[in-house]
Amino acid sequence: MNDRKTYLESYLKEKKLLVDRALEECLPGEDNFPEIIFQSVRYSMFAGGKRLRPILCLASAEAVGGDSSRLLPVACALEMIHTYSLIHDDLPVMDDDDYRRGRLTNHRVFGEDMAVLAGDALLTEAFHLLARKETASHFPPEKILCAISEIARAAGIFGMVGGQVADIQAEGKAADPKVLEFIHRHKTGEMIRVSVITGALLGMADDNSIKRLEKFGGNIGLAFQITDDILDIEGDMDTLGKATGQDAAFNKMTYPFLMGVEQARQKAKYHLEEALAELSGFDERAEPLRLIAKFVVERTV
Amino acid sequence: MNDRKTYLESYLKEKKLLVDRALEECLPGEDNFPEIIFQSVRYSMFAGGKRLRPILCLASAEAVGGDSSRLLPVACALEMIHTYSLIHDDLPVMDDDDYRRGRLTNHRVFGEDMAVLAGDALLTEAFHLLARKETASHFPPEKILCAISEIARAAGIFGMVGGQVADIQAEGKAADPKVLEFIHRHKTGEMIRVSVITGALLGMADDNSIKRLEKFGGNIGLAFQITDDILDIEGDMDTLGKATGQDAAFNKMTYPFLMGVEQARQKAKYHLEEALAELSGFDERAEPLRLIAKFVVERTV
Repeated sequence: MNDRKTYLESYLKEKKLLVDRALEECLPGEDNFPEIIFQSVRYSMFAGGKRLRPILCLASAEAVGGDSSRLLPVACALEMIHTYSLIHDDLPVMDDDDYRRGRLTNHRVFGEDMAVLAGDALLTEAFHLLARKETASHFPPEKILCAISEIARAAGIFGMVGGQVADIQAEGKAADPKVLEFIHRHKTGEMIRVSVITGALLGMADDNSIKRLEKFGGNIGLAFQITDDILDIEGDMDTLGKATGQDAAFNKMTYPFLMGVEQARQKAKYHLEEALAELSGFDERAEPLRLIAKFVVERTV
Repeated sequence: MNDRKTYLESYLKEKKLLVDRALEECLPGEDNFPEIIFQSVRYSMFAGGKRLRPILCLASAEAVGGDSSRLLPVACALEMIHTYSLIHDDLPVMDDDDYRRGRLTNHRVFGEDMAVLAGDALLTEAFHLLARKETASHFPPEKILCAISEIARAAGIFGMVGGQVADIQAEGKAADPKVLEFIHRHKTGEMIRVSVITGALLGMADDNSIKRLEKFGGNIGLAFQITDDILDIEGDMDTLGKATGQDAAFNKMTYPFLMGVEQARQKAKYHLEEALAELSGFDERAEPLRLIAKFVVERTV
């Protein structure tokens, strides 16, 4: 158990370092004109995120024997999309959050106009990063096109954006298990699922492995969001770096509110088991993916 | 002269119809869940835009002998990016506009949260539309990847977003010709330039034609924005469908303010001539592009 923990910690640390370094290279410097937008983008990109989505992408590529170092720009693009969504979610017209990862949110530092534009910039640059020659030339063009299409679908109106809208619409309404599942699958789940798929696809996995990893990703996405909602109730701001109890304050529809914390915890565990079952046919190269899956449910931050 | 006008009018009308029909097919219906975001997206997409960018893309493909009907989804993606930028620009934290094309702006109908998300959705769906199989399979994969990369660059931090930021930053400051040129080239110019390039690239133009059309597009982009700023002073709301005099009210840095309306008009004409000169080697298939260029400078709406 302790060995596993140490192994996972060093794996996460190593990958986070690689992702951070790749992001440093991918993102333009603050000396570009107009400086404020480059500062704003970098402020949120280097705010100490866990880099869960890019690491899942890399671990998924490794699980199918792919060369994960080639996928670093793709992993960065996933993190850029994730960060854009956080910046826009935190806006006063959305969740109105002042803190994120223990620091002031983007709009509190750079103003709301710059926060809207920093989000827009990150979303756009993510697609530029994916399609530009330096990234795309490492993969068969059909595969990178497929990855772009999958990522855009997962981030868009039928994915993350749709989930965010459903979440806002559900505020203050009576809990509805169907709507709740929709919100969870889309708001967070889709980007986690697509991070895993993209890794498999560009790691040159066969169709069967892609299908199993897709199911793995879908289950982990759900487990992640349920755990997040539990932490919003049980965690504290010092550990999480953001305000807790926000879901209750906003009358957000979450699993812990629908079924109680203990039942929600069981549901998260169920999805973890489902996810791990999909990896049964994979060899030891999928071990990091298995450990990350467990970490997603057992984490306290 | 009248023949030309009639020809241009029927060309624009025909292409607008094709673009509108293609958009109708590309955009998901309002019966999808959650309905409000699909309504919000469609509200702004079908608000009676001129479809200038998609038509430039199609006309550019035709100028090099390409089959423009294949480019319709690409043209739609360009219009979706343009529309997202309008929705976000109109937000209270940005230009705070209540009317656009004679109708209430998106956020005035659907709320600010939905307007932010509708913009996010359109930007993301544009890239989905470009990369998905139904679109991409019509072109050599390297070409469509190159188009995606060019479009993302033109829309992003080094293009439209950067220009928008510079525009906001310049408000109320003493006019600076260098900054003004930067704003114009980026805020509007880049998306117009890339619409022309994309048409040429996917119309299978040779490198020389692409270069000339790129210069054409750059000049037309500048001429377009200068004309827009003149119309903001001289036009009236009934004709334009949006509030005029906004630039003065916001102390925006524009050419008419820097050099006077007459000098600005001369500058727009200069860029029109430069643009037309680039088309000198093209045959009659570039005629629509020439007429659109003139229309851009001579328009009153």
